[in-house]
Amino acid sequence: MAGKGALEDIIILDLSRVLAGPFCTMMLADMGATVIKIEIPEGGDDTREYPPFRKNRNGEEESLYFANINRNKMGVTLNLKTPEGKKLFCEMVKKADIVVENYRPGVMDKLGVGYETLRQINPRIIYGSVSGFGNTGPYRLRPGYDILAQAMGGLMAITGEKGGPPTRAGSAMGDVLGGLHLAIGLLAAVHSRELTGQGQRVDISLMDAVIAATENTAIKYLESGKIPPRMGNRYAAVSPYDAFQVKDGKIIIAAGNQKPYEKLCIEILDRPDMITDPRFANMEGRLTYQDAIKEVIEDRLKDMTMKEAAEYVLSKGIPAGPIYDISQILEDPQVKDREMFVKMKHPTLGEITVNGCAVKLSDTMPGVYSPAPELGQDNSRVYGGLLKICDDEELETLRKKGVI
Amino acid sequence: MAGKGALEDIIILDLSRVLAGPFCTMMLADMGATVIKIEIPEGGDDTREYPPFRKNRNGEEESLYFANINRNKMGVTLNLKTPEGKKLFCEMVKKADIVVENYRPGVMDKLGVGYETLRQINPRIIYGSVSGFGNTGPYRLRPGYDILAQAMGGLMAITGEKGGPPTRAGSAMGDVLGGLHLAIGLLAAVHSRELTGQGQRVDISLMDAVIAATENTAIKYLESGKIPPRMGNRYAAVSPYDAFQVKDGKIIIAAGNQKPYEKLCIEILDRPDMITDPRFANMEGRLTYQDAIKEVIEDRLKDMTMKEAAEYVLSKGIPAGPIYDISQILEDPQVKDREMFVKMKHPTLGEITVNGCAVKLSDTMPGVYSPAPELGQDNSRVYGGLLKICDDEELETLRKKGVI
Repeated sequence: MAGKGALEDIIILDLSRVLAGPFCTMMLADMGATVIKIEIPEGGDDTREYPPFRKNRNGEEESLYFANINRNKMGVTLNLKTPEGKKLFCEMVKKADIVVENYRPGVMDKLGVGYETLRQINPRIIYGSVSGFGNTGPYRLRPGYDILAQAMGGLMAITGEKGGPPTRAGSAMGDVLGGLHLAIGLLAAVHSRELTGQGQRVDISLMDAVIAATENTAIKYLESGKIPPRMGNRYAAVSPYDAFQVKDGKIIIAAGNQKPYEKLCIEILDRPDMITDPRFANMEGRLTYQDAIKEVIEDRLKDMTMKEAAEYVLSKGIPAGPIYDISQILEDPQVKDREMFVKMKHPTLGEITVNGCAVKLSDTMPGVYSPAPELGQDNSRVYGGLLKICDDEELETLRKKGVI
Repeated sequence: MAGKGALEDIIILDLSRVLAGPFCTMMLADMGATVIKIEIPEGGDDTREYPPFRKNRNGEEESLYFANINRNKMGVTLNLKTPEGKKLFCEMVKKADIVVENYRPGVMDKLGVGYETLRQINPRIIYGSVSGFGNTGPYRLRPGYDILAQAMGGLMAITGEKGGPPTRAGSAMGDVLGGLHLAIGLLAAVHSRELTGQGQRVDISLMDAVIAATENTAIKYLESGKIPPRMGNRYAAVSPYDAFQVKDGKIIIAAGNQKPYEKLCIEILDRPDMITDPRFANMEGRLTYQDAIKEVIEDRLKDMTMKEAAEYVLSKGIPAGPIYDISQILEDPQVKDREMFVKMKHPTLGEITVNGCAVKLSDTMPGVYSPAPELGQDNSRVYGGLLKICDDEELETLRKKGVI
């Protein structure tokens, strides 16, 4: 996506499949990097077969999952198991800034294109990998999936109803966190290269990324000796900070400290006595007696809709908001203003909606420019044009041999 | 943290408090950036009063929350509401690369140190803000909290038991996602500055960051017209991919496609008939009849412990793992090998354990170098030394006036 993006001079060879790696390169492509998605000639990225599907102009079921996560990328095919494919890849590495892959550790080495080989070819190359458990340690060769990272990284253990089972965050949060950490590592390495002239290896583990996202869970346990319990929507340090039932659903009220609590008592509940009530006088008490506070709040708001209740509480300066499902998010004026969903034309799917980028840069605003590639659509443009590695005749020979 | 970190030449003025901003600058400090944490002279960052606490060498309760998230940072005090404080800050901006803040939008402008002012002083300055709803749009002035972002960004709506209530991810995931997106935006802007010579503004909304992390939820809804339901630990596209009860807890088995499913049937369940059984022959069937499959798996593993069951399933090449709580994570050999928790000496707290950095860089490995600052501990080192703005006498005057 050459243009005026923040990363417009960066060329990324993207061997990654499914979500963690592609989520990372999606963000980098949104910010202007040229992302060359490299897929196996037979079938390509697994997510080309992932739901949701739409019947396309050719009458075939085509994946919207793939179309969403791979917009803004160019697409080429390459079989790294052939000697010609390896050679072609090594030629590409000479002209690229970043290689991204999410194979199981060891696979790239076995293919003869591991980091040690690639840095000999181009010492400036930055090599980013994301895998279930990272490139080191006793579990490095274990298969990794999002749900395993959420389970072994400790997010499931702290998510769920009080007394209920451990619960997975409802999106592929392990993959997303892995992809975000990979983007940070790659961009830090790009900066480091400005200082040293050398590339390096970025190694991300989904399990590590989930552990990092549990923030202070370990110190809570280490200091108290108690495993932090699941507690629904409540928060161990602050109350009232929870979901409250209203007429047609639930809203959040988050009275983070003394001032909003007092406002809540006076302006919403009409119960100034709850400020001085010794049970609720400080945060410790409000944590102990949160059921009693909840009863008062829910009784006060029971005849209001989510929208009415949230606006009423907010109007008094107390943090509050509805619990939205995706249909409500798509209609929300703030979400529209922030362009968190973008409509685009897709050559075979017609008009589709894809996610916007959550990184807003004032002078180099990320954007959605081009649809996800058909399998191998940019073979001549990339091998022949951008990287000037092959002419058309060579490409035709490589195609016949199954190399591309 | 001048040293050999990837960001060793980057100076960050960090006005952020609590979690989203400080989580971002923690990562950048771990990667070698010089982070100058700027706190109000009276009391400093709110999290100095957040649990967990430990009695320190002076016999006072001191926060480990603050100590964890603010390691590797220098600390100065500054009152931006005084004319001298504003002047001092503007002098600092001349010598810095990045300003980070997480005030409600508009506060920095009211203080007279908004982005438009700062870019006049230093056109190379990169200005990063993270707030509940971002710096634009109808909700920009609303108070923002993690739980509101999780609720309004749609993560709660898809997290929880089937038929159960919407559920918050158990850590401050909205803040963490906001901090990660901010780090990506700042580093992209650092690179863009190499190309243009100009800084820019990075604007992150917690709500946007959560929406991005729900990945394909919107396209699922838009294509089917159905709100994606909460489904406990299951995943809409793959089965068996769930938590399974064993003797002493639950383990995850994630048979992502046909091959591991067949292995599971043959090598674990001794039920080759389940491969050809028309109910289970393809993924669609295995999604429809997942309760029946679960019954067979749980019956087979019911006499094994979590450790035994996970290792047994894994030994046949099928992705599996235990659901860990934090005590088990801290003892896990992979976690130790990856140094995801680091012991360090703290001048008043003694030995403490802090989170490690999940970004592993081969040549410039992030690390934990120095304890979180006492309030204002680096005033002379920063104002007098590093930035050479004031001499000792001036500093003493500023201190007496309550400016620092």
